[in-house]
Amino acid sequence: MQPVSVSSGQAASDVFAEADRLCAALAPDVVAMRRDLHAHPEVGWTEYRTTARVREALMPLGLTLRFGRELYDGVDRLGVPADDILKDAEARAATAGIEPDVLDAMRGGHSGLVAVMEGTGPGPTIALRAELDALPLEESAASVHAPAREGFRSTLPGVMHACAHDGHTAVAVGVARALTNLERPFGGRIVFVFQPAEEGTRGADALVKAGHLADVDVALTFHILADVGLGSNEVTPDVGGMLATRKVRVRCDGVPSQFASSPHLGRNALTVATAIVSLANAIPHAPGTRSMINCGRLVAGTAANIVPASATIDAEIRAEDAMELERLSEAFDVLVAGVGSSFGVTTSIETTGYAPSAIASPSLAAVIRDQARHIGATVRGQVSLGASDDAALLMAEAQRRGGEGVYLGLGAGPPRPHHSPGFDFDEPVLDLATKLLVRTIIAVGGSNGRPVDFSAVRR
Amino acid sequence: MQPVSVSSGQAASDVFAEADRLCAALAPDVVAMRRDLHAHPEVGWTEYRTTARVREALMPLGLTLRFGRELYDGVDRLGVPADDILKDAEARAATAGIEPDVLDAMRGGHSGLVAVMEGTGPGPTIALRAELDALPLEESAASVHAPAREGFRSTLPGVMHACAHDGHTAVAVGVARALTNLERPFGGRIVFVFQPAEEGTRGADALVKAGHLADVDVALTFHILADVGLGSNEVTPDVGGMLATRKVRVRCDGVPSQFASSPHLGRNALTVATAIVSLANAIPHAPGTRSMINCGRLVAGTAANIVPASATIDAEIRAEDAMELERLSEAFDVLVAGVGSSFGVTTSIETTGYAPSAIASPSLAAVIRDQARHIGATVRGQVSLGASDDAALLMAEAQRRGGEGVYLGLGAGPPRPHHSPGFDFDEPVLDLATKLLVRTIIAVGGSNGRPVDFSAVRR
Amino acid sequence: MQPVSVSSGQAASDVFAEADRLCAALAPDVVAMRRDLHAHPEVGWTEYRTTARVREALMPLGLTLRFGRELYDGVDRLGVPADDILKDAEARAATAGIEPDVLDAMRGGHSGLVAVMEGTGPGPTIALRAELDALPLEESAASVHAPAREGFRSTLPGVMHACAHDGHTAVAVGVARALTNLERPFGGRIVFVFQPAEEGTRGADALVKAGHLADVDVALTFHILADVGLGSNEVTPDVGGMLATRKVRVRCDGVPSQFASSPHLGRNALTVATAIVSLANAIPHAPGTRSMINCGRLVAGTAANIVPASATIDAEIRAEDAMELERLSEAFDVLVAGVGSSFGVTTSIETTGYAPSAIASPSLAAVIRDQARHIGATVRGQVSLGASDDAALLMAEAQRRGGEGVYLGLGAGPPRPHHSPGFDFDEPVLDLATKLLVRTIIAVGGSNGRPVDFSAVRR
Amino acid sequence: MQPVSVSSGQAASDVFAEADRLCAALAPDVVAMRRDLHAHPEVGWTEYRTTARVREALMPLGLTLRFGRELYDGVDRLGVPADDILKDAEARAATAGIEPDVLDAMRGGHSGLVAVMEGTGPGPTIALRAELDALPLEESAASVHAPAREGFRSTLPGVMHACAHDGHTAVAVGVARALTNLERPFGGRIVFVFQPAEEGTRGADALVKAGHLADVDVALTFHILADVGLGSNEVTPDVGGMLATRKVRVRCDGVPSQFASSPHLGRNALTVATAIVSLANAIPHAPGTRSMINCGRLVAGTAANIVPASATIDAEIRAEDAMELERLSEAFDVLVAGVGSSFGVTTSIETTGYAPSAIASPSLAAVIRDQARHIGATVRGQVSLGASDDAALLMAEAQRRGGEGVYLGLGAGPPRPHHSPGFDFDEPVLDLATKLLVRTIIAVGGSNGRPVDFSAVRR
Repeated sequence: MQPVSVSSGQAASDVFAEADRLCAALAPDVVAMRRDLHAHPEVGWTEYRTTARVREALMPLGLTLRFGRELYDGVDRLGVPADDILKDAEARAATAGIEPDVLDAMRGGHSGLVAVMEGTGPGPTIALRAELDALPLEESAASVHAPAREGFRSTLPGVMHACAHDGHTAVAVGVARALTNLERPFGGRIVFVFQPAEEGTRGADALVKAGHLADVDVALTFHILADVGLGSNEVTPDVGGMLATRKVRVRCDGVPSQFASSPHLGRNALTVATAIVSLANAIPHAPGTRSMINCGRLVAGTAANIVPASATIDAEIRAEDAMELERLSEAFDVLVAGVGSSFGVTTSIETTGYAPSAIASPSLAAVIRDQARHIGATVRGQVSLGASDDAALLMAEAQRRGGEGVYLGLGAGPPRPHHSPGFDFDEPVLDLATKLLVRTIIAVGGSNGRPVDFSAVRR
Repeated sequence: MQPVSVSSGQAASDVFAEADRLCAALAPDVVAMRRDLHAHPEVGWTEYRTTARVREALMPLGLTLRFGRELYDGVDRLGVPADDILKDAEARAATAGIEPDVLDAMRGGHSGLVAVMEGTGPGPTIALRAELDALPLEESAASVHAPAREGFRSTLPGVMHACAHDGHTAVAVGVARALTNLERPFGGRIVFVFQPAEEGTRGADALVKAGHLADVDVALTFHILADVGLGSNEVTPDVGGMLATRKVRVRCDGVPSQFASSPHLGRNALTVATAIVSLANAIPHAPGTRSMINCGRLVAGTAANIVPASATIDAEIRAEDAMELERLSEAFDVLVAGVGSSFGVTTSIETTGYAPSAIASPSLAAVIRDQARHIGATVRGQVSLGASDDAALLMAEAQRRGGEGVYLGLGAGPPRPHHSPGFDFDEPVLDLATKLLVRTIIAVGGSNGRPVDFSAVRR
Repeated sequence: MQPVSVSSGQAASDVFAEADRLCAALAPDVVAMRRDLHAHPEVGWTEYRTTARVREALMPLGLTLRFGRELYDGVDRLGVPADDILKDAEARAATAGIEPDVLDAMRGGHSGLVAVMEGTGPGPTIALRAELDALPLEESAASVHAPAREGFRSTLPGVMHACAHDGHTAVAVGVARALTNLERPFGGRIVFVFQPAEEGTRGADALVKAGHLADVDVALTFHILADVGLGSNEVTPDVGGMLATRKVRVRCDGVPSQFASSPHLGRNALTVATAIVSLANAIPHAPGTRSMINCGRLVAGTAANIVPASATIDAEIRAEDAMELERLSEAFDVLVAGVGSSFGVTTSIETTGYAPSAIASPSLAAVIRDQARHIGATVRGQVSLGASDDAALLMAEAQRRGGEGVYLGLGAGPPRPHHSPGFDFDEPVLDLATKLLVRTIIAVGGSNGRPVDFSAVRR
Repeated sequence: MQPVSVSSGQAASDVFAEADRLCAALAPDVVAMRRDLHAHPEVGWTEYRTTARVREALMPLGLTLRFGRELYDGVDRLGVPADDILKDAEARAATAGIEPDVLDAMRGGHSGLVAVMEGTGPGPTIALRAELDALPLEESAASVHAPAREGFRSTLPGVMHACAHDGHTAVAVGVARALTNLERPFGGRIVFVFQPAEEGTRGADALVKAGHLADVDVALTFHILADVGLGSNEVTPDVGGMLATRKVRVRCDGVPSQFASSPHLGRNALTVATAIVSLANAIPHAPGTRSMINCGRLVAGTAANIVPASATIDAEIRAEDAMELERLSEAFDVLVAGVGSSFGVTTSIETTGYAPSAIASPSLAAVIRDQARHIGATVRGQVSLGASDDAALLMAEAQRRGGEGVYLGLGAGPPRPHHSPGFDFDEPVLDLATKLLVRTIIAVGGSNGRPVDFSAVRR
C-alpha cells in the first residue's frame, strides 16, 4: 500500500486558484447534467441511461473505463430487482437512444462505471464516489418545486431523484473534467466510482468485492444533506451517526394444502413468517444503543382457504457499529433457522443490502476543512446522519488498510426531507462541491508527486 | 307461504316421457352452450359475457328477466374484486360483442340474472340455481384434456371453468327451454337464479338480501361432482359435510415512520397483523368438530426500512354449522379489535364470503331419488362435500320458512380434482341433469295445479 | 402365547352361584377397606400406606407378591413428584404404622404391588388392574357428602379419593379373597396389578416396561363411572372415547442477566417458553378429530428486573389414537427444539404421562355382558369416556399380542362429577363389581382347565 | 415554601471542626449498629426489628417520631409482600424482643420511621433518607467475606444486606446523634426518612404520598457504591444514569375448563399472558435510549390438562426519564387491556414499584464537593448508576417545588457487585459519610439562622 502525505502546498496555491476558476467555468455544464439526470431517474441496478451518459461525458478525457458486466466479474450483487423490472428498464433505456452494444453490456442489472485517471507521478490512490440511482417515488408537480417549475421534473412516473444523487454524479463528472483540464495536478491515481444502487445500501458491496477499491488509500465520499442542519455554503467533513445496516430478504417455503379438508398436510409458511416477525422483537439489544430490527414488509399466501406455502419478509437490521450489527445478524439468522425448523418450513436469507458504520479519518477531514475555508465555505462541526450509506463500506475499506476515508456533508439551502416528493437542493452547492473535491484531491494527491503525510495537517 | 305437495302423478307419466324426449332433443344445444361458456370463462362478479349469453338464450322464452344493477337494488355484494380487475373484464366483454347498453347495465361487477317463469296454475315457487363464474387458473393444454383436444379450451389466459359451472349454466338454460316447450306443466312459478361469484361463497348472499328468494318454497341446487366417489350416471340428493364458512378481509391501518430515526412515532400494522394471525390459532374449538380458522394470505408494509403502516389479512372461518360459525366469527372479530387497540392501529373486517351449512330436505330428496330411478340413474347414498357452497344459503332460506331445499350431486366420469388445470367432466351428465331437474320441477310443481305434498312421497 | 377360549360353562353354574354367595359375604369387608383407604388418601407415587394395606390383606392368600423398588427393576417411572413431596409422604406413612422395612422398600416413590395367583390348570393369564392413587383436592365436609356424614372423610387436608380408586382397590382385594376361598376355579393365572399414579396416566407405563404384563392374555380393567350416564346396577363393557394422551414437562434453561444493564447478555427462557405456548396452537390438526395440545401451566423467571433464565411448561397432547398422538408429539418436540435453538436456550422434554387409546375386545365384552345379565345387572351400550386412562396401555399390551382387553364401566347412583370435592358413589356397586369380575375371571379362565375360546360367546 | 441559601460560613468553621470530632467519637457506635443490622436483615416492608432499633436509638434525642401504621395514614404502599411473608416476619420480630405494642403498630407491613429534628431558627427543611431493607439472598459464609469472618453475617437464611442499607441506616442515626450533641447548629428542620422497601423502588412512593416530604426544600440521599468505579475516600455528588422505573404486576383472570372435553368453554389466561409477554417486545422505543420493558416472571395455570384460568406477570418498564417512562407505561397498559379483551380475559395492572429519574441539583452538589474537600475526601466527577433508586422520587419531590436534591455516591474499597452473596464495603466509609452529611446539613441549614443561598456556592 502506498503511504500518503499532504502536499507541502506553497507552490500549490496557483493550481488551487486555477482549479477554482476552471470549476466555475464548468459549473453550467454540471448543472445541465444534473438536470438531465434528474429528468430521467432510474432506480438501483437499472441505471442504464445514467451510466451511458456518464460514459459519454468521460470518454473524451482519456480515462480507463470499466462498466457493465465486466465491472462485476461474476461477483454477486445485493438486492438486484426482479427480472421484469430489469426488462422494463432495459426497454426504456433502448428507446432513450443508448447504443445497443453499450446497453447489451449492462443488461441484467449491470449498471455502474469505474473510471481511473492516472496522476502525473507517484502518489496515493484516491477513490471518489458518486451514486447513480433514484427512488421509487412520484415527484411533486407543484410550482414551488423547482424541477417542476423549471422543466426538469422526472419524466418517468413513480421514479424520482429525491436524494441528490443526480447532483453527485454531475459533480463527479465535473471533477474529472476539471482535473483533466488542469493536466492532472496530482500523483497516484483517481478512481472515479459511479456506483449503482446506493439506496438500500446495495451497490458498494459488489464493487468492493470485485476489487475496485483494492488499492485505494483515500476514500472520498460526499453527500448533499438537506435535513441535518447544514445551510447553504456550509460543509462538514464530520458526519456521525452513520448506522451499520444489513437488509435481508427471508423466504419461507412450506407446503400448501386445502385448509378445509387437510390443514394437517400443509406446512404453513405464514405461521413461520409471523413467528419470525414477532420473535425478532425479542432479540435483546444493548441498552442505550440504536440497535434495531425492523420487519418492514411481509407477503405470504395466496387465498383465504389455502394453507400458505410461501412467505417473504423484508427486514433491516441496524446497529451503531459493524460488530453489534454482526451480533444481531447472527441472532436473526439463528432465529429464522430455528423457527423454520420448528414447522418443517424451509427458510433462506438473502442479504439485500449492507453497510458498516464509519467515521471520518481526522487528517483527511482536516484537509477538507482547510480547503473549504479557502473557498469561503463555513465549516461546521459534527452532524448526525442517523441513517446508513454504503459510502461507509468504501471508507472502511480504505481505513482497514491504514488509509483514510471521509463522508463530506454539504448544505444546500433550506431544510427539505430527503426521500420525499418535494425534495430539492439549491444548485450552487454543485459548484461548491466540485471546487472542494478538486482542491481536496490536489491537496491529498499532491501537486509535486510527493506522497501525502496526513499528520502534517493536524494542527 | 305456499304449502307444497307432490303431484298425484298418475296422469303425469305422459308429461314425464315427453319431457325426456324434449331434453334429449335439446341436449346438443346444452353441450354447445357449455362449450361456448367454457371457452370464455369469467371470474366472480365479472361474468358479463356469460350473463349476456344467458340473457340471449332466455329472451325468446317469455320469462321475466332481471339482471345487472337492478338485480341488486343497492344491496352490498360480498367480495367484489378491485376496480382494475372489473375494468379489464368490462373491456374484454365490450370486445366480445355484448350490446353496449347490456354491458352498461352490469358495469361495476353487477353480473348475474334472475328469470321468472310463471306456471299454469297455483303451486309452489321453485328456485333453480346455476353458477356463472370460473376460476383464476390456467387451463391444461394437454391433449388428454378434452377441452384442449376438442377445441373449446379457455381463450382467456389464467382463467378456467374448473368447477363445472359452465355445465350448470347450460343445463339451467336447457331446463328453461324444455319447460317452455312443454308449455310449463307446473303450478306456481320457477325462479331461475343465474348466480355470479359462487367461488368464495360470495354471490348468493346479495341475491338473498335483494329478495329474489323471498317467496321460494323449494330451493333446487345441483353440482356436477367429480371427486366424491360418484361415477357416470350416479346421482345423490344427499350431500353432507357442507361446511358453514365466512371469509373475511382484515385491514390494519397504522402510521408509517422511518425505522432508523423514529420507530416510536409509527404505529406498526404488521405487529398487529402478525399477532392476529398468531392468536387466531388460540381461539378454542369444540373438540371433535371441523371448526377452523385459516389466515391464508397476509400482505403488509412497503420496505425493509419503513415501519409498516398497513396490512391486509385474508382469512376463512369454517364450522360444521352456522351457530358454531357465529361463535368463532365473534371470537375472531373480538380478537381483531382487541389486538388493534393494543397498538393504536385501526382495524376493520369486511366479510367477503358467506355460506351456512345445510342438509337436504328429506321429502324433496325422495322426489329426486324417485325421478332419478325413472330415468335409469343409479341413486347413491350420502356423500361428503367437505367444502362450502353458498347453495346452502338458498337451501337455508327456503328451509327456515318451512320450505325444502336440496343440493343434488351428479357424477360424471372418472375422479378428477376440482379447481385443478385438468378438471373436466363427461358431457352426458348434462342431459341427465336436464332431464332430472325438469322431472323434479314437474313432480314438485305439479302438472295439475294442485299443491305438492311432500309427505306423500315418503315411502 | 396362550390361546384363550371360553369355558363350555354347563358344569360351571355351581361355581358361579357359589362365587356370588361368597362375594356377598365378603361385601362388608370390601366396604370397610374402601372406607379405610378413603380416609387415608395418597397422591400418585406416594401410595405407601395404601400399598402396605393391600399387602397385609393379600399376605394370607398365598400369592406371589412383588412391591416397592423390586417391582420396577430400574425402569424409569413417569411423573414422579419432587423429593420434598415424597419425603413428606414417607414421614406420614411412617407415623401411620407401616413396618419400617416395608416402607424402606418403597421409599423414593416406589409404591404399587403386583400379586400373582396361580390357577389350577392350564389357562390364560388374566391381569386385573386396580388403581391406588388419590387426587390433590380438598374433600367436601358437607353433611350431604356421605364420607363426611358417615365418618370416613379424608384425614389428609388437600388430598381426596375423588375418582373411586379407593373402591377399585377394595374390589380387587375382594376378588382375590373370593377366588382364593373358591379354591381358584380357573386355569392359567391371575396377575393382580395394584397400580400407582393412574392420575396423570403415569403408573401403567413403568409396570408394562418392567414386564409385569408380558404374558397377559386378558387385561381386565374397570372403573366406577358416575358421570357418563350409567345409573345404579348398570354396567357396560363398551367404553369408547378413551383418548390417547401424552403429558410432558418442557424445561427451558437460558442465562440470567440484569435487565437494566445487560439484557443482551442474557438468554431469555421466557421468550422461548411463550413462543412454544403460542406456536403449539399453530400445529395443525386433522379436521373433525379431538386432537389437541394444551399448555396448562407455565412458570418462569424470578423477578421483574431479571432476564428470566428458566421456564417450565406442563402440557398435554391428546388425540383419538396413538398414531395421531405420535404425529402431534413429534411436531411438538420439533417445535420445542426449534424455538429453543432460535434463542440459544437449552430445552428438554420429559414425558410425565402416557396412555394410548383403546377399545374393548368384542369377545371379552360379550363374556362380561353375559355374566352381568346373570347377576341381574342392566347392560348398557357404548358410553364415551372423553378422557384418558392408562388402563388403555394394559389393554393395548394384551391386544397387540393377540389377547383381549376391556375397560368395564360400572354405574353407581346419581350423576356426580369426578375430580370434584363432592364426588362419591353408592357403595352397592362394590359388591356388583366384585361378583362380576370374579364371574368374568372364572368364565374366561375356565373352571375346567380348558383354554377359553372367545369365539364361542359371540352370539 | 422556604427559600434556601448557603450560610456565609465564616463563623461556622468552629462548628464544622467540632462536628468532625464528634462524628469520629460516634464512629464505633455507627459501626456497631451497622453490624447489628447486618446480622438481622429484613426484606422490604418487613423491617420490623430494624425500625424498632432505629426508634430505640432516636428516642433519647427528643425528635418527633412517627412510625408504623400512622406513618402511612391509609396511603397505598407499592409492592407489599403476601400475608404469609408478613406473618412470618412478624413472628420473627416478636421473638427478637420487640415490644409488643411497637410491633403491633407496624403489623401488616407498616415498617419505616420518620423523625423530625427542629433547628434553632428559621431555615430550610432538609430530608435525609436512609433505607432499611435487605435482599432475598443467601449471604456468603466464606472467610474472605468480612461479615462471616468477623461474626456479623446474616442470622436469617436467605436474607442479606447486600446493598449497604445497613450502613446507610447506621450513618443516618449517627448524623442525628451528632447534630443533637452539637445542639442542632442549623435553622429550619431535618426530616430523617428511614424508608422501607427501597429494593423494588417501593417505599418512597407512599412516604411522599403521605406528605412526609411536603415541606422539604433539600432532599439529601446517599449511597455507598462499590461498583461504579469509586474507591475508598472517593465521593461524588454527581450520580447520573438513574433510570426511571415502573414495576408492575399484571393479573389475568379467565375461566378454567377441562381441556379434553371443553376447551371452548374456558377463557385461557395463559394465552393472554404469553401474548402480552411477546407483544411487549413490539412496543417501539426511541432509538439510542435505555427504554426497555422486561417481563421477568410469569406464573400461570395449574395442570397440563386444565385450560389455565389465571396468570401473573411481573414486569419492569425502564426509561431515561419520567416522560418516556409514562409513554411506555401507557403503551404497556393499553397492550394489556387490548390483549385481555381479545380473549374475554379480565386483566388488571398493579404498580408495584416506581421511581422517576433524577439528577443532582448543581448548587447542592457544589456544597457537598466543598465539604468533602474539607475533610480530605477525593471528589470525583459523574458516575453512571445504570439502575434505579427511589431516592430519585425524593429528589424530584424537592426539585419540582424549586428546591434541591442530590444522590451522594460514596466509594468504599475495592469493586464488589451489589446484590451478590459476597457484597461488602470497607467500614471507614461510615465515618466519612457521617461527617460529610453532618457538614452538608450545617452548611445548607445554616449555623446562623439565615436562609441558604445556593447561588453563592456556584463557582
